[in-house]
Amino acid sequence: MTYELYYWTGIQGRGEYVRLALEEAGAAYTDMARVEGDGVIEALAEAIDTPSFAPPVLKHGDVVVGQTSAILFYLGGTLDLAPLDERLKLWTHQTQLTIADFVLEGHDVHHPLGAGKYYEEQKPEALRRAKEFRDERVPKFLKWFETILARNPAGPEFLAGDRLSYADLSLFQVMEGLHYAFPKLMGRIGREFERVEDLRERVRARPNISAYLRSERRLAPNENDLFRHYPELDG
Amino acid sequence: MTYELYYWTGIQGRGEYVRLALEEAGAAYTDMARVEGDGVIEALAEAIDTPSFAPPVLKHGDVVVGQTSAILFYLGGTLDLAPLDERLKLWTHQTQLTIADFVLEGHDVHHPLGAGKYYEEQKPEALRRAKEFRDERVPKFLKWFETILARNPAGPEFLAGDRLSYADLSLFQVMEGLHYAFPKLMGRIGREFERVEDLRERVRARPNISAYLRSERRLAPNENDLFRHYPELDG
Repeated sequence: MTYELYYWTGIQGRGEYVRLALEEAGAAYTDMARVEGDGVIEALAEAIDTPSFAPPVLKHGDVVVGQTSAILFYLGGTLDLAPLDERLKLWTHQTQLTIADFVLEGHDVHHPLGAGKYYEEQKPEALRRAKEFRDERVPKFLKWFETILARNPAGPEFLAGDRLSYADLSLFQVMEGLHYAFPKLMGRIGREFERVEDLRERVRARPNISAYLRSERRLAPNENDLFRHYPELDG
Repeated sequence: MTYELYYWTGIQGRGEYVRLALEEAGAAYTDMARVEGDGVIEALAEAIDTPSFAPPVLKHGDVVVGQTSAILFYLGGTLDLAPLDERLKLWTHQTQLTIADFVLEGHDVHHPLGAGKYYEEQKPEALRRAKEFRDERVPKFLKWFETILARNPAGPEFLAGDRLSYADLSLFQVMEGLHYAFPKLMGRIGREFERVEDLRERVRARPNISAYLRSERRLAPNENDLFRHYPELDG
């Protein structure tokens, strides 16, 4: 049964976390808006009892699910990308939710006054928020990922247990975003988080991920995306 | 088996979403920091392989879980506060994740430049963000809740299916926060969202919730909490 992903065209965005899971698993899926246009997103929401507040939305047979972390929770089961043990399954999900918080903070750096205004309308505020993000938040999040990798009883190869989960793919994607948006910051502090950087490289080298990253399906990062490279916010 | 909740003292905060579920179910629980002080939170994090990025954290036998939405997902099963049907269980979780997004935006209104600075250091920015929150975000979120209640095939009594879930309790809590922080706004637009307001009143009238709200365990809202009443941000 083919998966249908409903997400805006033109950016990696939150849809990318879903794409990485589908690509790693070699699942058959259609990126609906890229095929039919962004209008399919609203059309789906109008047609069902359980419309999502915002994309991404995944349709898989009778299941229609929104919220990136909930989608990945579902895919963790159907694509075998989560631990089977219930405690580790919950831990994987908890880790994903923290990654989602990190992603949102990465977005709010350039939109501290809300998504309804352009970056150019809130640049002084973005400069102030970026300083806290660079000095406090990025190190705090990365230290947490480093700590949980170090404490994993199965070793530091994966975030949870002894095999790949969607959370590992998501951490890869966040790190890609951070390096794109904040090359100076990451050049300075990245090596302090060796286990996180190693995980990123292992994910990148996986055959299906590697093939995906070289394909046309992988969009380049840009300044409409969640993580944006504004040199004045880096440092 | 007694539940242990680890959350800061002094505010309802995100811990309250967990308390409401425990109280509704009549579960035996200990609010650890209120008994032993905030130090227990860090002590737990130091002692385990799966420390949470931030409180609240719930301990239940061998299970230790953080992230409010993940805690509620777990309690939905153990306290029978979620649908048994897998699709509806996922939908309930998706709804909870959207409530969590709303709560965070409610917080960021008074801290648009980050949680590391006092409100007084970011008041002009808060005034600008509050306008978008009042004019765009609150109506958008409330309209979404109203829509999914209206579309629920089992009727508008609950968010998912035909019985109470943790998501209903959480929507009650958000509405309490909104009415506390934005009395003028809610006085003006609240009645447009009749199904949401009706759900709030039904939750408040439930025997266990009603008893809890009158108890000393329920802290009063205050200006250290997620939703804060700063009259200049209301309107």
